[in-house]
Amino acid sequence: MTLSANWGVIATWRMAWEGVSEAANLLQANKAAGEAAIHAVKCVEDYPFYKSVGFGGLPNERGEVELDAAFMDGTSLAIGAVAGVRNIANPILVAQALSRERFNSFMVGGGAEEWAQAQGFERKEMLTERARNHYLKRKRETLDRGLSPYTGHDTVGVITLDTQQNLCVGTSTSGLFMKRPGRVGDSPVSGSGFYADSQIGAATATGLGEDLMKGCISYEIVSRMGRGMSPQQAAESAVYDLETRLISRFGRAGDLSVVCMNARGEYGVATTIDNFSFSVATPSQPAAVFLTARDGKHTLIRPADSAWLEAYQQRITAEVIQ
Amino acid sequence: MTLSANWGVIATWRMAWEGVSEAANLLQANKAAGEAAIHAVKCVEDYPFYKSVGFGGLPNERGEVELDAAFMDGTSLAIGAVAGVRNIANPILVAQALSRERFNSFMVGGGAEEWAQAQGFERKEMLTERARNHYLKRKRETLDRGLSPYTGHDTVGVITLDTQQNLCVGTSTSGLFMKRPGRVGDSPVSGSGFYADSQIGAATATGLGEDLMKGCISYEIVSRMGRGMSPQQAAESAVYDLETRLISRFGRAGDLSVVCMNARGEYGVATTIDNFSFSVATPSQPAAVFLTARDGKHTLIRPADSAWLEAYQQRITAEVIQ
Repeated sequence: MTLSANWGVIATWRMAWEGVSEAANLLQANKAAGEAAIHAVKCVEDYPFYKSVGFGGLPNERGEVELDAAFMDGTSLAIGAVAGVRNIANPILVAQALSRERFNSFMVGGGAEEWAQAQGFERKEMLTERARNHYLKRKRETLDRGLSPYTGHDTVGVITLDTQQNLCVGTSTSGLFMKRPGRVGDSPVSGSGFYADSQIGAATATGLGEDLMKGCISYEIVSRMGRGMSPQQAAESAVYDLETRLISRFGRAGDLSVVCMNARGEYGVATTIDNFSFSVATPSQPAAVFLTARDGKHTLIRPADSAWLEAYQQRITAEVIQ
Repeated sequence: MTLSANWGVIATWRMAWEGVSEAANLLQANKAAGEAAIHAVKCVEDYPFYKSVGFGGLPNERGEVELDAAFMDGTSLAIGAVAGVRNIANPILVAQALSRERFNSFMVGGGAEEWAQAQGFERKEMLTERARNHYLKRKRETLDRGLSPYTGHDTVGVITLDTQQNLCVGTSTSGLFMKRPGRVGDSPVSGSGFYADSQIGAATATGLGEDLMKGCISYEIVSRMGRGMSPQQAAESAVYDLETRLISRFGRAGDLSVVCMNARGEYGVATTIDNFSFSVATPSQPAAVFLTARDGKHTLIRPADSAWLEAYQQRITAEVIQ
């Protein structure tokens, strides 16, 4: 993936496409990487049919939506993050605000909710009827039968590079579907769910947070780019090395998927699964969705065709029968 | 620091000395690194006069003690962590239990408290009269006058190496004194507060969590050891590189202190402050406390003499007048 670009935006999953398109417009108009990343993540949080982020996100085992989000400015290295927060319309905006604080920049649970409310961030019931139906169905099929309920943990992670060569990254998720109340994954965790250094590059991850945290995958990818690897080399080598380590040491590896971008706007993608999609835009690549397939220690990339995109839209809006 | 050792234990601060002594006895008797690390951290949590960890820890701005802890097994890479939990006697035991979980291994706030209670972990009012007096005094001197209240953020981090060459690390803290409710630092965050890989080494940090997280300092130190640096080289170069990056990019750097140990039992220490102490024991070094002083890009180490040790004991047990 070598592109000559003076701006760029890449994000995990198809769900980021609309946000990536709008972020691309902002970046092309010389807006700041931070503004573009926040805008893109907010688009995903606000869309009710994306069931793993923000409004419409799937709840924990008790039926409550608990959200995690983070923002990192790769120029100042400032980080803000929230975890396990309920009833906040846009966790990414709280994370952005916290990144401006010298102290108390990572906040969790009730304390984070109170602070966000005191600061005037919009409160909102985040559980939709649709997400509730998903929950009731899953609960009946798993918990009520004594089976493991865990499935689904798609985080949106957006990396932006502006024309001033600033890199930023934002993440947001409702976390592992059917998680225990209070469970936090990699998304708000520096170095695991995200990392950005404007002098090198940025990376963001999605998959099983418990396993991504065992390898500090985003920091590792940025480190590898810093030692001279291309984004694609860094992403593939770091992801498959971590998978190998997890299997040999922990006995198994959950889903691991990443996107990254260097300070020149070149990007890389790697995944251990077969249905990972991502969204990207650069001066030479209008906002588009790509699909990936694993091929040994490599990740193959192909454009999503219109049939796939239509099937996706049908699937996410189809009726959910409890 | 080159030692020929087939076991070892090193920990941040003087407060770990008793725990390090007992961990050394366990390791010498061929007990597992995990058991020794947990035991050492628990000693610190239980001692009422250590005011930044566990029972007797200093509270948040509302006068509530909120605790963070983590445990990592460097052989399996398993991690368990809790953050922002109240009224739990030994957060490190909850972290250890969570490290055995495939899912939901990092838990925060009320959800973590409920899980710990359901699992039968001891509940305890963690605010002592002494810590309350510290709080009231500090509040009167700062918050009540509109001044910044932040000071004090000493985490205990204990690294153990057993005779089977397993490395483990445990951390525990009451976090930044006068923090906002819900604030979480680096201590429960993989790669920032701690990291361990039994094939390479382990590291743990103390200082301003907000800044330690900007550099994933513990993961970086283990990476440097993995690329061939001695523990002392890895600790010093990583800490002073991060300090330089923080000053040039973020505009300032908080306190940064680390200890690390490699898989051969050699250890390293680095700090940006002048009063950092640590506790260590190996087959050739009975459990002892050392003091450090910064010298440019190096950290000088000297044994704590009996006068210092006595003054310490006097200081931590002296009456606190509100």
